[in-house]
Amino acid sequence: METFKVKAYGTEAADAPFHNIEIKRRNLLPDDVEIDILYCGICHSDLHAVKNDWGGTIYPIVPGHEIVGRITQVGTEVTKFKVGDLAAIGCIVDSCGHCHQCDNGEEQFCEKGWTVVFNAPDKVLGGQTYGGFSEKIVAKANYVLKMPENIDLAASAPILCAGITVYSPLKHWKIGAGTKVGIIGIGGLGHMAIKIAKAMGAYVVVFTTSTSKIDDAKKLGADEAVLSTDKAQMKAQAGFDMILDTVSAKHDVNTYLNALKVDGSLVLVGLPNQPLEIGAFNVVNGRKSFSGSNIGGIAETQEVIDFCASHNITADIELITVDQINEAFERLEKGDVKYRFVIDIAASKK
Amino acid sequence: METFKVKAYGTEAADAPFHNIEIKRRNLLPDDVEIDILYCGICHSDLHAVKNDWGGTIYPIVPGHEIVGRITQVGTEVTKFKVGDLAAIGCIVDSCGHCHQCDNGEEQFCEKGWTVVFNAPDKVLGGQTYGGFSEKIVAKANYVLKMPENIDLAASAPILCAGITVYSPLKHWKIGAGTKVGIIGIGGLGHMAIKIAKAMGAYVVVFTTSTSKIDDAKKLGADEAVLSTDKAQMKAQAGFDMILDTVSAKHDVNTYLNALKVDGSLVLVGLPNQPLEIGAFNVVNGRKSFSGSNIGGIAETQEVIDFCASHNITADIELITVDQINEAFERLEKGDVKYRFVIDIAASKK
Repeated sequence: METFKVKAYGTEAADAPFHNIEIKRRNLLPDDVEIDILYCGICHSDLHAVKNDWGGTIYPIVPGHEIVGRITQVGTEVTKFKVGDLAAIGCIVDSCGHCHQCDNGEEQFCEKGWTVVFNAPDKVLGGQTYGGFSEKIVAKANYVLKMPENIDLAASAPILCAGITVYSPLKHWKIGAGTKVGIIGIGGLGHMAIKIAKAMGAYVVVFTTSTSKIDDAKKLGADEAVLSTDKAQMKAQAGFDMILDTVSAKHDVNTYLNALKVDGSLVLVGLPNQPLEIGAFNVVNGRKSFSGSNIGGIAETQEVIDFCASHNITADIELITVDQINEAFERLEKGDVKYRFVIDIAASKK
Repeated sequence: METFKVKAYGTEAADAPFHNIEIKRRNLLPDDVEIDILYCGICHSDLHAVKNDWGGTIYPIVPGHEIVGRITQVGTEVTKFKVGDLAAIGCIVDSCGHCHQCDNGEEQFCEKGWTVVFNAPDKVLGGQTYGGFSEKIVAKANYVLKMPENIDLAASAPILCAGITVYSPLKHWKIGAGTKVGIIGIGGLGHMAIKIAKAMGAYVVVFTTSTSKIDDAKKLGADEAVLSTDKAQMKAQAGFDMILDTVSAKHDVNTYLNALKVDGSLVLVGLPNQPLEIGAFNVVNGRKSFSGSNIGGIAETQEVIDFCASHNITADIELITVDQINEAFERLEKGDVKYRFVIDIAASKK
């Protein structure tokens, strides 16, 4: 298969810095589009993958799965896009396309396994996939999203992962007017969850371990913010239909299960790499659930992009240059970002 | 409040034997019925309570919450029963009666707290409640169930706890024809779950740690029985809509979460007194849930009694005399019962 060279930003080891590397992209197939990448968000999963926290990382790795840019080429069979359109790619760039889950628009649960945009076996080209820390990307048009023209494109990049990751469970668990939802953690995911849950009409309570973030939560639109280290405040919490747990480190979940209504769900979207401990009575009393949710399908990703555009929701971002990627990863590891780094890939090309 | 004396079987300490004790029951109030107890099942929760495994036990304790007998008196306002009717009492003998949950027929989730038939504060008489290891009981008619005449009464007693505890989640999670359900453990709850899930039309797979129970599971009606200690067999399990977990000791639940379909639920009805560990990926991949369920409301308990009667479902029991209670508790602690002890209270009165 014919390929072309693309400039990218990758690393060769868990403890090596990011630097310029050259990767190959396939020449356009009939159902592909080529995107000139303008911005790419940095998600905590990028950090986990780079550090090989979950195992399975193959180096060199080029992360990045909150990709926005402009279409520069369309394959002969593509009708969804034309050259010059804004477009975006999230986590999913391929799936079997014909299992029950794919038919249902839930490619994130594809029975044959879907292809992650980076560090996954590339079923088309061979080798592994490379993500959005690069200047161009080629992907099947069916897995590429449309981006509206009149939005802050850089600040919309995080919708591709942070946005869909919180939107999908909020929708699945029927959050809307008259419901009370908790959000644990105010990071990339949590701050988007506050905005989206409020736009859905819910009463939103934020839980944070940091006194400094209490005010931030309210500025982001939360109705209440609770210091989760304050036992008395925590004990008083009750009546939640759902609590969305965005924390990626081991933590106590039983206090939150106790704050749920009958039939309520605590839904994990963070990915701690140690197991969480659940007391039997905390789920048995009140028929409660500890559940998980994983990004969302292509159709639902388009839905959250459109939802955010129509509600003027973007992420609060720190726009960085490609030279600042290493510093950004160091700060991300310390949780020092409000609330998402986005790389200005466009600026590096000038 | 006027009371009368009733012969009961109780114990004064976690390590003391059962023996005859005398308890007081209230004289009938207008909405009460009096029941001459004929049979009472022995549930693992009785053992936990007697041993104070969960804390909060007040001695002397008279356990027993799978109670069947015959109405001997009805209060002046009672229309639901007449003297001579068969009747039954399960876990719940009182609740607030007017909260959202009680209105919903889910008294087990009463917002003000419901009254357990034994070892709970007796809101009417003061002191604590005493259960079915006794010759007579007085309770509000609204919390008393009707028992059909043409059933094996002794073998139907376990429906009052084991039966409703498994029926309620099977129904809540929509088990029926075309669904695949797993049952972990073949004890009092598990063996009833096999029969009920089969009667509901499901494909039933039983998981047991004991090779000797593989055949038993099939005799009870299971479509498949899997030795859960066999890693290869376990790894091959997949496609479950729901797995009902009846195990009351700490155990690995992640293998079962992995065997669920997308959106599947592992539902705990056992009550291990140590927390269970759940890996984030095991719920996040496939949007799975680890949930709990706790008995069922009064209306649903009547429903499972009628369901069992119409499907000829009873428990497999070992009928014992009151003199054998201590021995039965020792055997229950070792898991040595197929599958439920039921005390023949009637025989002790002859």
